[in-house]
Amino acid sequence: MADKIAFLGLGSMGAAMAANLLKAGFPLTVYNRTAEKAEPLRQQGATVAATPAEAVREADIVFTMLTDDKALEEITTGPDGFLNALKPGAIHASCSTVAPDTTRRLAEAHAAHGSFLVASPVFGKPDVAAAGKLWVGSSGPAEARERLKPAQEAIGQGTHDFGDDPGAASVAKLCGNFLLGTVIEGMAEALTLAEKCGLDRVGFYEMLTSTIFNTPVYKGYGKLIAEQHYQPVGAPPAIIRKDMNLVVQEAYKNEVPMPFANIIRDRLTATVALGEPDVDWASFAKRVSEDAGL
Amino acid sequence: MADKIAFLGLGSMGAAMAANLLKAGFPLTVYNRTAEKAEPLRQQGATVAATPAEAVREADIVFTMLTDDKALEEITTGPDGFLNALKPGAIHASCSTVAPDTTRRLAEAHAAHGSFLVASPVFGKPDVAAAGKLWVGSSGPAEARERLKPAQEAIGQGTHDFGDDPGAASVAKLCGNFLLGTVIEGMAEALTLAEKCGLDRVGFYEMLTSTIFNTPVYKGYGKLIAEQHYQPVGAPPAIIRKDMNLVVQEAYKNEVPMPFANIIRDRLTATVALGEPDVDWASFAKRVSEDAGL
Repeated sequence: MADKIAFLGLGSMGAAMAANLLKAGFPLTVYNRTAEKAEPLRQQGATVAATPAEAVREADIVFTMLTDDKALEEITTGPDGFLNALKPGAIHASCSTVAPDTTRRLAEAHAAHGSFLVASPVFGKPDVAAAGKLWVGSSGPAEARERLKPAQEAIGQGTHDFGDDPGAASVAKLCGNFLLGTVIEGMAEALTLAEKCGLDRVGFYEMLTSTIFNTPVYKGYGKLIAEQHYQPVGAPPAIIRKDMNLVVQEAYKNEVPMPFANIIRDRLTATVALGEPDVDWASFAKRVSEDAGL
Repeated sequence: MADKIAFLGLGSMGAAMAANLLKAGFPLTVYNRTAEKAEPLRQQGATVAATPAEAVREADIVFTMLTDDKALEEITTGPDGFLNALKPGAIHASCSTVAPDTTRRLAEAHAAHGSFLVASPVFGKPDVAAAGKLWVGSSGPAEARERLKPAQEAIGQGTHDFGDDPGAASVAKLCGNFLLGTVIEGMAEALTLAEKCGLDRVGFYEMLTSTIFNTPVYKGYGKLIAEQHYQPVGAPPAIIRKDMNLVVQEAYKNEVPMPFANIIRDRLTATVALGEPDVDWASFAKRVSEDAGL
């Protein structure tokens, strides 16, 4: 018998991941605050629940994919959270990008309840999620990590184990998003200098990404930056600004000076302040051009 | 009849490139200030010249691969430079990483002499040069670029055309080295934060470079940074510090704020000041660990 799964949070990432769990044959109950987002999954065979507690009542595994720490804590341990309705022994696979300490705090709440938390953050945009090709990080109690593997396999092309500290995979996810930010700022600075020196911006991008930077991350973000066209929206600036703030806070707490991280966070803050919500977060690259008078 | 080639500057990059020109069947004369570095090439069939002028007298193409702008200008237009001995119509393939304006100034000197300058900078470490797998940039007069292609094919796996402005390929090379610097600083900050949060530095490097950063640049530099072992030396800190200073100066001249470039230049300045010459330039990643008390 496949584990019964509840999936809470059906944004562009969560909906794609839930659909792949359904395709893989897991009995699925879904919940989203805005109920209409659950409709396509209902048509594919999912049960739609009216509350988080109702969604998890029968579940062996609860996936959450939410915007931020606050939303995750509310839906788990808040007044209308699901934890009290969860079966002892069940696993919470927490996929949101949150502070490692949030993950650890929730892990303690689960331990007190007799359930398990496994941090299960994912790398990849919505199109990658839809293709079931995410990269998954996994950390938490060993037995729970093991039991979660078939479900993780249904959403991703590979799972990397970060050990027993539930916060570890959250750290890894933050570091990964930070590195994507360095790709964007780096490409933006390089293409802007090249352009102001008379080189063709797109031609130089094509040269770089067919030689030493011939890899999807540089090709994908680089194309948006080279063409200055930040569509489609993989993730909006406000969401990743939150992630970069978590990086900077984690660096502060752990006493790690990270000059690149500070720059990226401020670029995203400027982008949010300028009020362009319907663009991919790579649009902070425009700040580099603007600073250079382009 | 293959073009006769002179190669001036037999450091670890130049010697490997010269050997590949010889293997490809080009008659080759070489010159190096320290004559013993020419010995292995003599044994492979090259003629060794005592001066730059003697080296280029019969040449259709002159390659130069020198440390910096000053060395390149001295060997070309200095009192003992080769330009006056060069045949009219010959091509100078300038492979050094130098300021775009240095390249343009030399191009004018060649035009006055009746010869041609083609900027021909290369991407790749000495082992890549030895394998004939460099990526080559090319800019300068169209006819000369065309004539140079067979020789560029002998040293590289591909040549990218940057058009008529001889400085353009120098710009591209500086931007490329800058991007490599962003990879190093980015990986150093990410791995340092991960380490201080309790993750295994090497394990996290392996996860990153087998998933979203699965590409030679991240694998190669990342390994040095993950293991904190900066051997073998692809290029020493002082040489790339010079390159990053050229990036920052070019950015200043062209009015492009480049916060990442400033940080990388200062990391290399600290590394040179600390006096560790026999390490790869990626060793500036140690500054990130040291700043975090590791």
